[in-house]
Amino acid sequence: MRVYNFSSGPATLPLSVLEKAKDEMLDANGTGQSVMEMSHRSGDFKPIIEKTEGSLRELMEIPSNYKVLFLQGGASLQFSMVPLNLAAVEIGVPKKKASFIETGIWAQKAAEEAGKYVEVIIRASSKDRSFSYIPQGAEADTADAYCHITLNNTIVGTRWPYLPKTGSVPLVADISSCILSEPLDVSKFGVLYAGAQKNLGPAGTTVVIIREDLIGHAPSWTPNLLRYDIHAAEGSLFNTPPCYGIYIIGLVLDWLKEQGGLKVITALNQEKTELLYSYLDNSKHFFPLVEKSSRSLMNICFISREKDPEIRKTIENRFVKEAASVGLVNLAGHKLVGGLRASIYNAMPIEGVKALIAFMEKFEKSL
Amino acid sequence: MRVYNFSSGPATLPLSVLEKAKDEMLDANGTGQSVMEMSHRSGDFKPIIEKTEGSLRELMEIPSNYKVLFLQGGASLQFSMVPLNLAAVEIGVPKKKASFIETGIWAQKAAEEAGKYVEVIIRASSKDRSFSYIPQGAEADTADAYCHITLNNTIVGTRWPYLPKTGSVPLVADISSCILSEPLDVSKFGVLYAGAQKNLGPAGTTVVIIREDLIGHAPSWTPNLLRYDIHAAEGSLFNTPPCYGIYIIGLVLDWLKEQGGLKVITALNQEKTELLYSYLDNSKHFFPLVEKSSRSLMNICFISREKDPEIRKTIENRFVKEAASVGLVNLAGHKLVGGLRASIYNAMPIEGVKALIAFMEKFEKSL
Repeated sequence: MRVYNFSSGPATLPLSVLEKAKDEMLDANGTGQSVMEMSHRSGDFKPIIEKTEGSLRELMEIPSNYKVLFLQGGASLQFSMVPLNLAAVEIGVPKKKASFIETGIWAQKAAEEAGKYVEVIIRASSKDRSFSYIPQGAEADTADAYCHITLNNTIVGTRWPYLPKTGSVPLVADISSCILSEPLDVSKFGVLYAGAQKNLGPAGTTVVIIREDLIGHAPSWTPNLLRYDIHAAEGSLFNTPPCYGIYIIGLVLDWLKEQGGLKVITALNQEKTELLYSYLDNSKHFFPLVEKSSRSLMNICFISREKDPEIRKTIENRFVKEAASVGLVNLAGHKLVGGLRASIYNAMPIEGVKALIAFMEKFEKSL
Repeated sequence: MRVYNFSSGPATLPLSVLEKAKDEMLDANGTGQSVMEMSHRSGDFKPIIEKTEGSLRELMEIPSNYKVLFLQGGASLQFSMVPLNLAAVEIGVPKKKASFIETGIWAQKAAEEAGKYVEVIIRASSKDRSFSYIPQGAEADTADAYCHITLNNTIVGTRWPYLPKTGSVPLVADISSCILSEPLDVSKFGVLYAGAQKNLGPAGTTVVIIREDLIGHAPSWTPNLLRYDIHAAEGSLFNTPPCYGIYIIGLVLDWLKEQGGLKVITALNQEKTELLYSYLDNSKHFFPLVEKSSRSLMNICFISREKDPEIRKTIENRFVKEAASVGLVNLAGHKLVGGLRASIYNAMPIEGVKALIAFMEKFEKSL
């Protein structure tokens, strides 16, 4: 029996995608091979990577002066690659400055790693209230090499309701947990990056969307695999890419198009989110953690209203366990913040959200 | 209809592995999820990564003072990680020396990349005769930080018949195209690394086997994702690993154990190789390119004996095309060297080798 999987990532995939992958496991597109067995330079694999890129360009309306790269290492490797390619300098040259907006643990990690290669300036932060909101009026300085934000904060469940003013300073965003969850004007960004394992496909593939003029500035000591110019020049085939992940992403994008594209998915995400937040806002026992203006469409964090922290923890643990026993799995919050979290990415059907709410109602009554 | 796939990588996988993956696509181990959907920190995925590591330790008899890491970025990222972790220094400190033995294009690439971080000393080379042999008597200098070799050279089809004398200098080997093809005394090496896509599983996972005392020496400016110490401390879960690849590798290792383990596989590889080399040694039309003492068990390169290079190319192209039409695919040599190549990794059944020989006999007669 399939479960409703509320994991923050790796996360649930559309059932029809898994069924297609299953059907093609021994023989994809009449090649007599699994996609896992295909030479990445063969005529068998080429249409697969081209289709995946084409679908992503179409769904996100990516302008033609942006490259799409399929890389490895997740968002964490982008924490290094972005500063290395956009701002790092040759040995002996003074470091450049870059802006960071601190909206959560991943935003902090991105800044900390960048600190090896640039002078990090935190231009705004919501650390004062446990990252439960997105700071208003964030801006970059014209001298900054770039400005980095985390567009959706997976751990605390916030989402930027606006974009910071950066003028001509390239805006860089980690969109791992919100890519394709709603429309995004790519032209407002210098670099967008996303680990695939939340809204796109399996772990092990990273999508990078980068404006062409930002490619080619890495210092000479940058590891080859961390240079955007090398990957861009070779169409993501400088070395063997994560072929199977790229294939699955392609199937997920096919599914998105079948659903009616981004507009339909956005409406569905809003419907799912409203159902769940509306329940939480009216619940006597649970409450959502973040400010209304900054609520994520993808990761919904909440806690028990119980004041005694020990009892609260016990109730939440019981919630996670009992939910799992009825097929609603991975509802525990991130280990660094505790509480509860339902990640409801594109592939989570509305029936899953309804089943969760029904369970929560029952659970509340049992207390 | 399944083909016999002679690709050098990504390469053919055991049919029973694909069948198992197919069966478990919608629901693995009764979890109600695909392995692609499992949270990497969940109790669902933990037994999978532990089993994969355990099987690899068992099959390769990896000593307990070695860590096994499941990383991303392929062997190409190891070309950077090895020098960064074993020899690179803080900014301003003079570079250390490291030895490289030049036995092919990948060995050259490893040396070239290392040159960013260490002083590269080529201690031996077979470049003089197009890498068609492994140089004898290779040694490291006692002052070297490490000595790097490519144990099996995928492009030209050579394999080290001995190990270089390195004394206390750590020996580092790229074993991407020969891991688990025959027994290897891990204790003779400081670091072994392999991209999975040849003998282990799908592209996107890299296995690193590293002696513990070599961990923890990366300079402070090393990107986090390129530090062995960080990955080792977190059991390969510092960031989201390529979970599905690790699962498939586990299935491939199960299959290897079912076959009877490394001894049985080695004997089978020898049988396959002898069949094919024996055919080539006696063929009037084809001949194998490398010296007998240095022949690979995995990648068998050969060319047409036709002397006119244009006619030779035409014959070889016809060979590749006609072979593909009867289900023997990916027999073209690497684009940098041309000719023909049959990669016969562990998962290539002996029937595939026999079918190839039968086709070659027929092809010869048609000339």
